Amino acid sequence: MRAIAAVFRGVGRPIELTSWPRPDPVGGEILVEVVACTLCGSDLHSIHGRRPTPTPSVLGHEILGRIAAFGPEAGRDDAAGRPMAAGERVTWAVVASCGACLPCRRGLPQKCESGFKYGHEPLRPGRELSGGLADHCLLVPGTAIFRIPDGLSDAAACPASCATATVAAALEAAGPIEGRSVLVVGAGMLGVTAAAWSRVLGAADVIVCDPSDERLAAAAAFGATRTAAPSGLAEAVAAATGGRGVDVVVELSGSPEAIEDALPLLGVGATLVLVGSVFPTRPISVVPERIVRGCVTVRGVHNYAPRHLQDALQFLARSPQYPFDSLVSSWRPLSEIDAVVGSDLAKRSLRVGIRPEIPGGPAAAS
Amino acid sequence: MRAIAAVFRGVGRPIELTSWPRPDPVGGEILVEVVACTLCGSDLHSIHGRRPTPTPSVLGHEILGRIAAFGPEAGRDDAAGRPMAAGERVTWAVVASCGACLPCRRGLPQKCESGFKYGHEPLRPGRELSGGLADHCLLVPGTAIFRIPDGLSDAAACPASCATATVAAALEAAGPIEGRSVLVVGAGMLGVTAAAWSRVLGAADVIVCDPSDERLAAAAAFGATRTAAPSGLAEAVAAATGGRGVDVVVELSGSPEAIEDALPLLGVGATLVLVGSVFPTRPISVVPERIVRGCVTVRGVHNYAPRHLQDALQFLARSPQYPFDSLVSSWRPLSEIDAVVGSDLAKRSLRVGIRPEIPGGPAAAS
Repeated sequence: MRAIAAVFRGVGRPIELTSWPRPDPVGGEILVEVVACTLCGSDLHSIHGRRPTPTPSVLGHEILGRIAAFGPEAGRDDAAGRPMAAGERVTWAVVASCGACLPCRRGLPQKCESGFKYGHEPLRPGRELSGGLADHCLLVPGTAIFRIPDGLSDAAACPASCATATVAAALEAAGPIEGRSVLVVGAGMLGVTAAAWSRVLGAADVIVCDPSDERLAAAAAFGATRTAAPSGLAEAVAAATGGRGVDVVVELSGSPEAIEDALPLLGVGATLVLVGSVFPTRPISVVPERIVRGCVTVRGVHNYAPRHLQDALQFLARSPQYPFDSLVSSWRPLSEIDAVVGSDLAKRSLRVGIRPEIPGGPAAAS
Repeated sequence: MRAIAAVFRGVGRPIELTSWPRPDPVGGEILVEVVACTLCGSDLHSIHGRRPTPTPSVLGHEILGRIAAFGPEAGRDDAAGRPMAAGERVTWAVVASCGACLPCRRGLPQKCESGFKYGHEPLRPGRELSGGLADHCLLVPGTAIFRIPDGLSDAAACPASCATATVAAALEAAGPIEGRSVLVVGAGMLGVTAAAWSRVLGAADVIVCDPSDERLAAAAAFGATRTAAPSGLAEAVAAATGGRGVDVVVELSGSPEAIEDALPLLGVGATLVLVGSVFPTRPISVVPERIVRGCVTVRGVHNYAPRHLQDALQFLARSPQYPFDSLVSSWRPLSEIDAVVGSDLAKRSLRVGIRPEIPGGPAAAS
């Protein structure tokens, strides 16, 4: 029996399927059959050279799987304490952590000093299956695994382990949302999720900003109370807040211009959560007196802790009013990955889903 | 009976003593006899034109007083619920607040939409006594007054209502201090207070940075475990933290260069509290990817809420191991105020104390 993965070897080089003998999980490892993997914006950043990435590697970190085999010392409960059986649909936190180092002890397991990050690791002989663009993934000890709630579709659940969980961490960092005005900058997958979740949390206003009309239309379907192109943002915020400025900004674009445009829109005591800046850009210009006199908080959020993934799955399961499964606009087989990542489809979609062609497994296209 | 105050009429104009009929407190007002007022750095910024200030006005907002007379509707308990009597030593929060507006309800009474800020108000006929550079001060309803703990000297207590209380707010914003490495930038009055308080809170390391050797020596007497000039700061932080970077920075200088120098010294999950930027400067340059990947928090703190003043007085009363009363390096009579604010003494001292010459009141010099 062999396992297949798409190997990224560097910018401009084809992403090719490669196979190895399928590994037996040892120790605390768990072998998972990949059901689906959605392409995150940061996968595309890696592939197109907008951020450094180890090579060769197996990309893909928004992964939905089914448990195939437990290592002899692997735990049989998920991270929420529920029993897991072979065949169960699961997802897992993008960073496996040691639980003992300083960042782990301080509540930032995603910054674990010996962390293992799915979809971001260099290939290791015999242990190549570390990403979601593959038909199997080998989970390492320290991975926080969660069963997928019944009734949650593959499409809705698949982005949970990056997009939705990161939004959970961002909204936690934002502080209280109920009754607050929230500006979401960037109406991609995270942006529409942040809009919907803010509404569920009782935000008084959810303003979503994006240059794309199509994405703003999606945001409106996901709870935005106002949408604005960057050129109309200041006016939209003034109208929504009576000139006070917003209480919360969730910045998902990573654009220096967008961050600089958002700074003057912050009201007294506001919180700006920076999430999108995960690739190199020019520095931004900040007026420190404004931060001080405005009693403003700026918080950087990168990845998330396991509790955020648990929150994300519960949120998705309890929010059927928002069509999360429509956000994966198309499904493509793993064999087409190299064509997909260079396509307009990948550029324009909030998410493209990739399914391996496992004999007897789920269909490659739907 | 008349009351005297030093009136600031604009940059470059003499600060002159002026007298008015001493007002009787009406409604919820309380008349206080000023015991002492320490000159805060921001008073000097106003006087020297480094920040906009309404004129004419009575400056001075680090004020210690004795209750002279209660208005007929004034409360007789202090903000901690303890009874106040005439003659009692008191201080009060720099901003009186309404308690009802949005910033008040959200825990930022210092940003009250109808706030009254002692030492910062334009003169109002009949109600001129709004600052500490005077022999009396008229407290308005909404002022959080606190009795001075017995045994706390005038010199130690006087800066509490700006310097010490602002440090209380800054350390609250910093999050946990116990076991953390703390960098204090700027070894003025707030800096040495932040150093001492961080040590009392159990900081593992307290690194204080300042260009002045004299101020660094003061910081060492106030609990700093390491001191560094700006040129040696990176090395001192690396040595103290094993290269991890600091957990907390309390930035008190307001210098754009100092803030930019501190940013790369922040460890994973660190918090940078900006306090000193209360005057216009050039913008600072910030790498947003670093904020995100470092899970860094930046918090602006301006002034404080009444609970911070209460904490400040308790901290001062319980920390006799630090010579807070030595920080007021000299006392001058109110009649000399114009000479004092332009002197080297004011520039070089952490604090100069001003005492009115009330007949039968406290001595003008000590």
